[in-house]
Amino acid sequence: MNVAGKHYRTIWLKDGAPEVVQIIDQRLLPHEFHIVDLQTVDEVAYAIKEMQVRGAGLIGATAGYGMYIAALQAPKDSQEAFLSFIEEAGEQLKATRPTAVNLEWAVERQKIAIAEAVSIDDMIAIAQQTAQDIADEDAEFCRRIGDHGVSLIENFAARKNGEPVNILTHCNAGWLAFVDYGSATAPIYAAHDKGINVHVWVDETRPRNQGARLTAWELGQHGVPHAVIADNVGGHLMQHGLVDLVIVGTDRTTYTGDVANKIGTYLKALAAYDNDVPFYVALPSSSFDWKIRDGLRQIPIEQRNGDEVRHIYGRRENGDTDWVLLTPQDSPTANYAFDVTPARLVTDLITERGICDASETDIARLFPDKILAGDNVPR
Amino acid sequence: MNVAGKHYRTIWLKDGAPEVVQIIDQRLLPHEFHIVDLQTVDEVAYAIKEMQVRGAGLIGATAGYGMYIAALQAPKDSQEAFLSFIEEAGEQLKATRPTAVNLEWAVERQKIAIAEAVSIDDMIAIAQQTAQDIADEDAEFCRRIGDHGVSLIENFAARKNGEPVNILTHCNAGWLAFVDYGSATAPIYAAHDKGINVHVWVDETRPRNQGARLTAWELGQHGVPHAVIADNVGGHLMQHGLVDLVIVGTDRTTYTGDVANKIGTYLKALAAYDNDVPFYVALPSSSFDWKIRDGLRQIPIEQRNGDEVRHIYGRRENGDTDWVLLTPQDSPTANYAFDVTPARLVTDLITERGICDASETDIARLFPDKILAGDNVPR
Repeated sequence: MNVAGKHYRTIWLKDGAPEVVQIIDQRLLPHEFHIVDLQTVDEVAYAIKEMQVRGAGLIGATAGYGMYIAALQAPKDSQEAFLSFIEEAGEQLKATRPTAVNLEWAVERQKIAIAEAVSIDDMIAIAQQTAQDIADEDAEFCRRIGDHGVSLIENFAARKNGEPVNILTHCNAGWLAFVDYGSATAPIYAAHDKGINVHVWVDETRPRNQGARLTAWELGQHGVPHAVIADNVGGHLMQHGLVDLVIVGTDRTTYTGDVANKIGTYLKALAAYDNDVPFYVALPSSSFDWKIRDGLRQIPIEQRNGDEVRHIYGRRENGDTDWVLLTPQDSPTANYAFDVTPARLVTDLITERGICDASETDIARLFPDKILAGDNVPR
Repeated sequence: MNVAGKHYRTIWLKDGAPEVVQIIDQRLLPHEFHIVDLQTVDEVAYAIKEMQVRGAGLIGATAGYGMYIAALQAPKDSQEAFLSFIEEAGEQLKATRPTAVNLEWAVERQKIAIAEAVSIDDMIAIAQQTAQDIADEDAEFCRRIGDHGVSLIENFAARKNGEPVNILTHCNAGWLAFVDYGSATAPIYAAHDKGINVHVWVDETRPRNQGARLTAWELGQHGVPHAVIADNVGGHLMQHGLVDLVIVGTDRTTYTGDVANKIGTYLKALAAYDNDVPFYVALPSSSFDWKIRDGLRQIPIEQRNGDEVRHIYGRRENGDTDWVLLTPQDSPTANYAFDVTPARLVTDLITERGICDASETDIARLFPDKILAGDNVPR
């Protein structure tokens, strides 16, 4: 999507220097727009772990490009040493964010693609092509999610006589979380671009404020009307008819429809259910975990550093950016990064293949090939 | 309770200068402990409106002392002019925070008390005594809430074999929100002082962070084990058995048991209900509204300045405090300060007279005199 009128993806090969991967350092948004060069596996792993890049699709795409970087960086004297380096790089990349299923998916896809080539030169070429394919597919899948999801928004618009359709979203499942379009935002951008009057309630999404920093920024850049709200506000808005529908993304969704997403999503799903507000989860199928039946019991939930709760980053009035302490010095904290919304609270899933119930049966209807491919699925 | 080993209330007459009311500027906590002198009605109104003082009980006590300040400040040349000034001061104080029922209650109590005196000197003396009585009663009622509520915590402790009883609270319904002890914290302090192993999950409570700033600070000063969490986390903790009970305060509770409290309370009540975690609301009876049947439809919800969402106050590494911008410059926001938790989600109310269901019948059982006194109650 556009930044200051110029189209960007969230990850790309540097113009004229295809051995360099470039990303936007999303930690600095919305206050600074800064592009970072990635040239080593360590730099790629750092970018994922320290959240210069974040979001299901972009993490996957970055891991894909990371494996290409690994192929460039690997020793070329023997295929064994080359592949051993690739293997270790994959493990390093997979260890950066334990909850993100796209990470493992992209690494494994690269390993399979590379293993099919004969020479090291071909392996490098195929790693580059596969990284590009992963990114292109991610963008295309998000575009299709928008195509399918926009019908839901049109249904509301038909009843609202030109009044805005109010959509609540949590965290950033926008284009910044993918390669382009976003998942939760794809139907919103599609509706807005069709001239439908939409208004987005943007949960700020503590502790890392991806909503206040990223979703508000990207919606603003695209001209979509929105308002930032504290995470505490959504329930009240729903009680008073001020939310027509909720659309969120997901970091991992089980083949039974349980949704792991940014911490706090579950609370919004409860409020939506209590107020008969439809609660949609938008995802490319790469975010499905075909091996896990019970999201609440089986999806590992990452715990992050407590400093993320104690401190926050922002811009001072003089334009400098800085961290400030919010709590008493050294307050104990707990910092769970995700929660799991059980399928019973999810109205529908919006995927690149269409819309389905958050149920094993209906997911299998849209993705029979994936269900069949899911090894070790406990049935 | 204690601050650095010295006992404080949240409001008091200055030692040796009883014409000066003193408060702690709670906006500066936890980074600075600063005492403010109040000597005019304007200063008292500012203190309430700008939240130097906040919290149901303390707002009431401050309004009580404000009326005493009004009596000191009023013209003394005629009773008519004196009472007219008192009347206007009452209106000014009541207008500062529309949701807080204690405000009106304290102002009206002072007006009735003052009207019973004969001379202006007596009116001033009675206003001082009434302000003191309101503060003393507030502290005593909170102490009794602790006496009653501690039994609930003891019940959990009996099942936990010395493991901590985990209590989640939202916002600050601590001693800083009252004159002493607090409402939601009174049972916690009582349990801790009895040697029961308690651990408190402190919701940070965006946008004003009363949990992270105030509850964490006062629990820390008293030595109660706790951890600060983002408001998004409580649902996840409840899903995983990490919360034994919730205790929150309230700014206004209907005689039918609907609870208006800091925005986000409703979301925690939904999560507690979904996970069979008991959800208690602690309140002195001054927080009951005996005239309102339907909290969701009848309690006005204050909307505050959007800058509270866009900016946050904290301490920089060099020790200075400053505001930082969290969102893109001039992001639109919505800032609802309270929400209403319907009675169906509330397990019990903890009052100075004991524990009751959040139902019209059981509230009336504990407070038959108040129900009878409630003018204009639609029955």
